[in-house]
Amino acid sequence: MSQSKGTVVLAYSGGLDTSCILVWLKEQGYEVIAYLANVGQEEDFEAAQKKAHALGAKKVFIEDLRKEFVEEFIWPGVQANAIYEDRYLLGTSLARPCIARGQVKIAKQEGAQFVSHGATGKGNDQIRFELTCYALPWSMDNQAPAGMYQMTTDPDKAPNTPDTLEIEFKNGVPVKVTNIHDKTTCDSALELFLYLNKIGGKHGVGRIDIIENRFIGMKSRGIYETPGGTILFHAHMDIETFTMDKEVRKIKQSLSLKFSEQLYNGFWDSPECEFVRHCINKSQEYVQGKVQLSVYKGNVYILGRESPSSLYNRDLVSMNVQGDYDPCDAGGFIKINAVRLREHHRLQSKKDCKA
Amino acid sequence: MSQSKGTVVLAYSGGLDTSCILVWLKEQGYEVIAYLANVGQEEDFEAAQKKAHALGAKKVFIEDLRKEFVEEFIWPGVQANAIYEDRYLLGTSLARPCIARGQVKIAKQEGAQFVSHGATGKGNDQIRFELTCYALPWSMDNQAPAGMYQMTTDPDKAPNTPDTLEIEFKNGVPVKVTNIHDKTTCDSALELFLYLNKIGGKHGVGRIDIIENRFIGMKSRGIYETPGGTILFHAHMDIETFTMDKEVRKIKQSLSLKFSEQLYNGFWDSPECEFVRHCINKSQEYVQGKVQLSVYKGNVYILGRESPSSLYNRDLVSMNVQGDYDPCDAGGFIKINAVRLREHHRLQSKKDCKA
Amino acid sequence: MSQSKGTVVLAYSGGLDTSCILVWLKEQGYEVIAYLANVGQEEDFEAAQKKAHALGAKKVFIEDLRKEFVEEFIWPGVQANAIYEDRYLLGTSLARPCIARGQVKIAKQEGAQFVSHGATGKGNDQIRFELTCYALPWSMDNQAPAGMYQMTTDPDKAPNTPDTLEIEFKNGVPVKVTNIHDKTTCDSALELFLYLNKIGGKHGVGRIDIIENRFIGMKSRGIYETPGGTILFHAHMDIETFTMDKEVRKIKQSLSLKFSEQLYNGFWDSPECEFVRHCINKSQEYVQGKVQLSVYKGNVYILGRESPSSLYNRDLVSMNVQGDYDPCDAGGFIKINAVRLREHHRLQSKKDCKA
Amino acid sequence: MSQSKGTVVLAYSGGLDTSCILVWLKEQGYEVIAYLANVGQEEDFEAAQKKAHALGAKKVFIEDLRKEFVEEFIWPGVQANAIYEDRYLLGTSLARPCIARGQVKIAKQEGAQFVSHGATGKGNDQIRFELTCYALPWSMDNQAPAGMYQMTTDPDKAPNTPDTLEIEFKNGVPVKVTNIHDKTTCDSALELFLYLNKIGGKHGVGRIDIIENRFIGMKSRGIYETPGGTILFHAHMDIETFTMDKEVRKIKQSLSLKFSEQLYNGFWDSPECEFVRHCINKSQEYVQGKVQLSVYKGNVYILGRESPSSLYNRDLVSMNVQGDYDPCDAGGFIKINAVRLREHHRLQSKKDCKA
Repeated sequence: MSQSKGTVVLAYSGGLDTSCILVWLKEQGYEVIAYLANVGQEEDFEAAQKKAHALGAKKVFIEDLRKEFVEEFIWPGVQANAIYEDRYLLGTSLARPCIARGQVKIAKQEGAQFVSHGATGKGNDQIRFELTCYALPWSMDNQAPAGMYQMTTDPDKAPNTPDTLEIEFKNGVPVKVTNIHDKTTCDSALELFLYLNKIGGKHGVGRIDIIENRFIGMKSRGIYETPGGTILFHAHMDIETFTMDKEVRKIKQSLSLKFSEQLYNGFWDSPECEFVRHCINKSQEYVQGKVQLSVYKGNVYILGRESPSSLYNRDLVSMNVQGDYDPCDAGGFIKINAVRLREHHRLQSKKDCKA
Repeated sequence: MSQSKGTVVLAYSGGLDTSCILVWLKEQGYEVIAYLANVGQEEDFEAAQKKAHALGAKKVFIEDLRKEFVEEFIWPGVQANAIYEDRYLLGTSLARPCIARGQVKIAKQEGAQFVSHGATGKGNDQIRFELTCYALPWSMDNQAPAGMYQMTTDPDKAPNTPDTLEIEFKNGVPVKVTNIHDKTTCDSALELFLYLNKIGGKHGVGRIDIIENRFIGMKSRGIYETPGGTILFHAHMDIETFTMDKEVRKIKQSLSLKFSEQLYNGFWDSPECEFVRHCINKSQEYVQGKVQLSVYKGNVYILGRESPSSLYNRDLVSMNVQGDYDPCDAGGFIKINAVRLREHHRLQSKKDCKA
Repeated sequence: MSQSKGTVVLAYSGGLDTSCILVWLKEQGYEVIAYLANVGQEEDFEAAQKKAHALGAKKVFIEDLRKEFVEEFIWPGVQANAIYEDRYLLGTSLARPCIARGQVKIAKQEGAQFVSHGATGKGNDQIRFELTCYALPWSMDNQAPAGMYQMTTDPDKAPNTPDTLEIEFKNGVPVKVTNIHDKTTCDSALELFLYLNKIGGKHGVGRIDIIENRFIGMKSRGIYETPGGTILFHAHMDIETFTMDKEVRKIKQSLSLKFSEQLYNGFWDSPECEFVRHCINKSQEYVQGKVQLSVYKGNVYILGRESPSSLYNRDLVSMNVQGDYDPCDAGGFIKINAVRLREHHRLQSKKDCKA
Repeated sequence: MSQSKGTVVLAYSGGLDTSCILVWLKEQGYEVIAYLANVGQEEDFEAAQKKAHALGAKKVFIEDLRKEFVEEFIWPGVQANAIYEDRYLLGTSLARPCIARGQVKIAKQEGAQFVSHGATGKGNDQIRFELTCYALPWSMDNQAPAGMYQMTTDPDKAPNTPDTLEIEFKNGVPVKVTNIHDKTTCDSALELFLYLNKIGGKHGVGRIDIIENRFIGMKSRGIYETPGGTILFHAHMDIETFTMDKEVRKIKQSLSLKFSEQLYNGFWDSPECEFVRHCINKSQEYVQGKVQLSVYKGNVYILGRESPSSLYNRDLVSMNVQGDYDPCDAGGFIKINAVRLREHHRLQSKKDCKA
């Protein structure tokens, strides 16, 4: 009998791609440990486990990473309002570094020399996984089947009655969800996120069908559904705009843009992404309060918000109550702003006279 | 009889605010020319005209600015994907410099020494108007009544059948709209925009109720409806992502962010806004093609897109057809990207060993 | 005798402007406390004190703020590589919030109702001071006499022999300076900064004569000398580039740009400036090591650098020793980068064929 | 005799590296055309030509690209104030796409199937060249010998008398240089640039010894001398700040940052670099006028500037002549700016009271 070339921890999904890889690795003389990470996808883990054994896996590990996925990866994404190319909420991109980390942990624990993943060389996923690997050092993935919505109802088949929710935030992160109608309440991270996925899914929230720009320079079609993430995206943006200083928010938004790109490109474990996450987290210290919203026919409608740290001062804005604000000051403010514009136009007209 | 202090062109809406100002200006000894600009708002211009005469206006001008408003102000906004604080489509902000320009033209033509507007000293509008004034040099406004949706149906009362549209773009600007079902076609700018407003309004598209940050540093609640603008925003973003190089688009998006802020703050006629508009327009030269979408229950769903200048190469992305792309290259690409990450982690672990 | 209208803490310099204001305030019925802050400027404090008393000041406070100025204001400026419009090192801008803070402290301590400053309404200083006031809440200033270099020798009269220094950094802040020739050593913040000012001044380092853009929209000529700051600027930039990851540095530089503008415009005490200072400080955690440089005829020449946390790996860069780096990977890296460029040119040539 | 595998256009420098490659290519069965581009480097082209023939090159082309290099590559760099990581003026980076373009032209003309360059797989140059290749489609290079200054005198051996120059700009590009002392005048692009190189070199201007971040993720030491470029950098920055609106300049500077990075990374022929060059060029339309400066002991000192399109209005800035500017407006301006800061501090103190 030939000697083993070493042990590989393979990120295994039970699907065709990773099953082929498992067999191929065996044929090449490697021992294979199959690793199944549960980050909330719809999957028959038991069947996959059996299949892995049948194909010759030495060991099979199924790990429930859902709690750490929500708390350590999704929450920073919510704080950032992470969105790629204005539309994609980056759910899959967030899952990658989480799974890769788990896979590496198993490899260390089992003394495996290699990790392997099922991504082809064309998608972004190979890059996301391998980069996390080099950084960690390691990684894996299986690409979601495109075009088949699994979590969300078709909006035109969605219920004719909205659900109304109240979401409470602390440090820019949701800490409690209450359904106003039936008084359902969730206050742990995982439970809360699963509940939002359920409600969002029921009302057909969060489907997109886009053309996206891959890291490696190609455009490709992406079809995603992110029901819970979409609700949180809108709610967080609302409470953030309500509580955060506008200039701080401008800077924070430019950091979020960078974060989204780093995440999409697979650089979660890079020094720049660590730096940006630190800064974004700092920006969230006053992002707290409650947002009321309704979910209906594919939409999220913000109904209201309240916060102990709101910078929204109704008296100040009101046209009748003067507060500290003197409308006459606006005159000076405008004139000073106009100094530069008038100099510019003075010059322009001098030029026009000559021409 | 006392001598006139001069002539004022007052931006007049027929409402209470501007009517009071008209009377007050007369009492102060000014002659008043009432100026009513039609930029598409719902208003009884005839009634307003009568009222202005009754209150003592020397002359009343009603001007239909809708065509120039759409072509010269809304279209650049569409090209830019202009959006303020991630949510507000800036419709009112776009109208201001258009109206101000008209008001100034009348003032010059009639030999008036002053222009006046009806904004209070608290909103953004005073600033937007006065800054355009200084630049042009002049301006005006009347604030839309808050909280009363006028153009859009409530989404839960919207039709149960979607409308499906095809919008054609050239240079990042819509040139033709076709309703797939009833074959309605529009190909002039104004007609096309009014049609999109009608369809969007019918399906409850484009309502927002937000907290926004005013230029002068206060947070305030804003309630807006932008049915046609919202449809165009989604369609344009889709065709742009489809046709524009990803790195060009990143730079263009950072310019759009600046454009949106300039616009919101009232700096349309500033040198920086002229510069940014020029650059954004340049970026649109290949943004052409057709987008199919459906409008339903407050939502805009993209169904598909096609373009002669698409950078989307289905063969290249496909996992089976190899084309010019060699998956093996991805290995080198990843390893080179990882050089920096590995050096970083090498250093980190050296530190951890010491500690 | 008329009753006092209250007490004013006047930022007093002993010069003509602030002396006039002192007298004018007395005439208006205010009691005046003169406040002289020593932030290192060349000034005869004793003479100024006598003059203030002679003009009727109720009390005179002279306060040595040099240590806190260096540690709490200049050091963050060094960490940021703060520079306005590519050339101005912002020394005066850094002094303003420091002085304003001192003035406010005295006002509180003495129960004064007002603070006053000697800036005209045209420079940036009024704005810097009043904004710090509103934030703190309060402020003051006296403008430095323009065009007269006080700290630096004319470079063409500077010594013909350079001084060679070694500057040690921790957390992006200088902690020790050693003169290689005469073995002079400084390791407290104030002493170290004064020494660098002396050496820089001796060699004519840090003079600029520029056109700058004031916050209020005017261009004005500014003549500045910043000898110590200029040496630190070059040394810090060198050690930072040596030790900081390149992508972290890119993000940090964009934050520094914002910081410099906030500082110049007088927004040190704003929420956005606090946020940016926090982020920049975080970025500096590995910015440590020693920089050798020579100072000669107006120039600072970097001679070398060393650091325990350097990311510069000589073996990796060397063309002979291969280390972990495989030159062949560069081929794949380049090809992947070129995928996008080739698609672009494929499209361009298709267009050219048609045209 | 074996059949030729085809013809290669080799970027040849006469040095060891490219000579080895020439021989190796011949041994592999290729026919070699040696291409020597003159972009102003110090090189014995005749000797190199002889050597190429001796080593078996089928043909040798020597091409003087200096004029197009200055006009089409250096001038856009001057307009941009292109600088990489705050210090490096990118001279070599500018030469690469110029040489690559020439090499590709020869390849097309001679019917060669391949181009080849002498760069190792580690520096940035391989990437710069190959990327330009893929885009054009093709490229080449020879790395300058490090650490040996060839163009510039050591500053401490530089003359004790400065040279004083006047440089005239149009569209952000130098059109005339006059030496104030000896009345030397240059007004063609190449002649002018060579003259500035001579004057700068004579006074030891433009030497740097830095750590830079390579595109591929390594830090490396770079030693550069850019005498003429350094003079132009300072002069252009001065006339630009003098004539360009401050907000336009802020945006332009952010574009320049991107341009510098694209250039350094070898993306001159990319769509994003074409876009950015277009925008920067647009920003330069009013950048015209004359800058006086002296060059002395490694330094460039700006002495003065004048321009027909200056936005610097001496009367407006002066404290005595009021012009259109009313100092009282500054009060309103400051108060409005402070609205946001006061709300922030109101909230902070509310929090402090509770804590």
